[in-house]
Amino acid sequence: MSESDLLEMLENARLTPSGRNAQTLRYVLSNTAEMNALIFPTLSWAGYLTDWDGPEEGERPSAYIVILNDDTLSKTYFCDHGIVSLAILLTAIEKGYGGCIIAAVNRDTLRDTLSIPEKYSIVQVIALGKPAETVVIEPMVNGDIKYWRDSQGIHHVPKRSLEEIIVV
Amino acid sequence: MSESDLLEMLENARLTPSGRNAQTLRYVLSNTAEMNALIFPTLSWAGYLTDWDGPEEGERPSAYIVILNDDTLSKTYFCDHGIVSLAILLTAIEKGYGGCIIAAVNRDTLRDTLSIPEKYSIVQVIALGKPAETVVIEPMVNGDIKYWRDSQGIHHVPKRSLEEIIVV
Repeated sequence: MSESDLLEMLENARLTPSGRNAQTLRYVLSNTAEMNALIFPTLSWAGYLTDWDGPEEGERPSAYIVILNDDTLSKTYFCDHGIVSLAILLTAIEKGYGGCIIAAVNRDTLRDTLSIPEKYSIVQVIALGKPAETVVIEPMVNGDIKYWRDSQGIHHVPKRSLEEIIVV
Repeated sequence: MSESDLLEMLENARLTPSGRNAQTLRYVLSNTAEMNALIFPTLSWAGYLTDWDGPEEGERPSAYIVILNDDTLSKTYFCDHGIVSLAILLTAIEKGYGGCIIAAVNRDTLRDTLSIPEKYSIVQVIALGKPAETVVIEPMVNGDIKYWRDSQGIHHVPKRSLEEIIVV
């Protein structure tokens, strides 16, 4: 993935609404084999797929965006991390990529490995690349939130219905 | 604003990524004059515009989406509130509306007024309507994050540059 692809994603993230307009989030971009290899082992993959250790060599993300918060500006960033993450993912999809937000990060290791200064907290990581698998969204059955993979390798993601999520 | 407009926004929100795919967020929809009038006084408007008390009658939002979390499923919703809020706002803009995420909510009053059951926490409110004002995004100067309104009533929102938000 080119640097200009990543910059386009961040350009959209940059323009989104921000709580108190404070814009305290910061970004580390990775799209080299060397840096990607440092980030990959600090991430946990697909918690519900217990018989899967994560993507094999060759199917691993070709880029990452590490989202940080500059705690010296404010430790509170409201819902900004979700807003920028969706902006990044939508831009990625528009460009033919796929992505995944990963909050299960070994933050101490990642901080050491990338020499991230203490003033930044590590919020989450977005993994990006050409999708190797087909994802289908389907109705949730019996409140079972677990995504699953079928024998053809298709990844199924159950979603709650509109009726279920509207309280009034 | 019609109910079908609001349902379209929620339909897009419903399909977004969710932490652990748990989808614990729930929604209250308001698009009647009566219900809107109950919600309006529980919200604080544009903290930096200290000489403005919020929108006048006739310029007030024509709809609200109150975002709740079902705490009985999980009290943790990661960045889901930001993700769904951006999905709602982008859908609103696509349909010719504008919107604003409001986290400064008098939650006790709003809960009482709308009889929101205790099992739901009130996360934030999205105000929606036809925009009465022009918004321009511009480069931030000297780290001043405050949005401001000029003598023509144009609302200026300073945003940090790409250079400023990229750490590596």
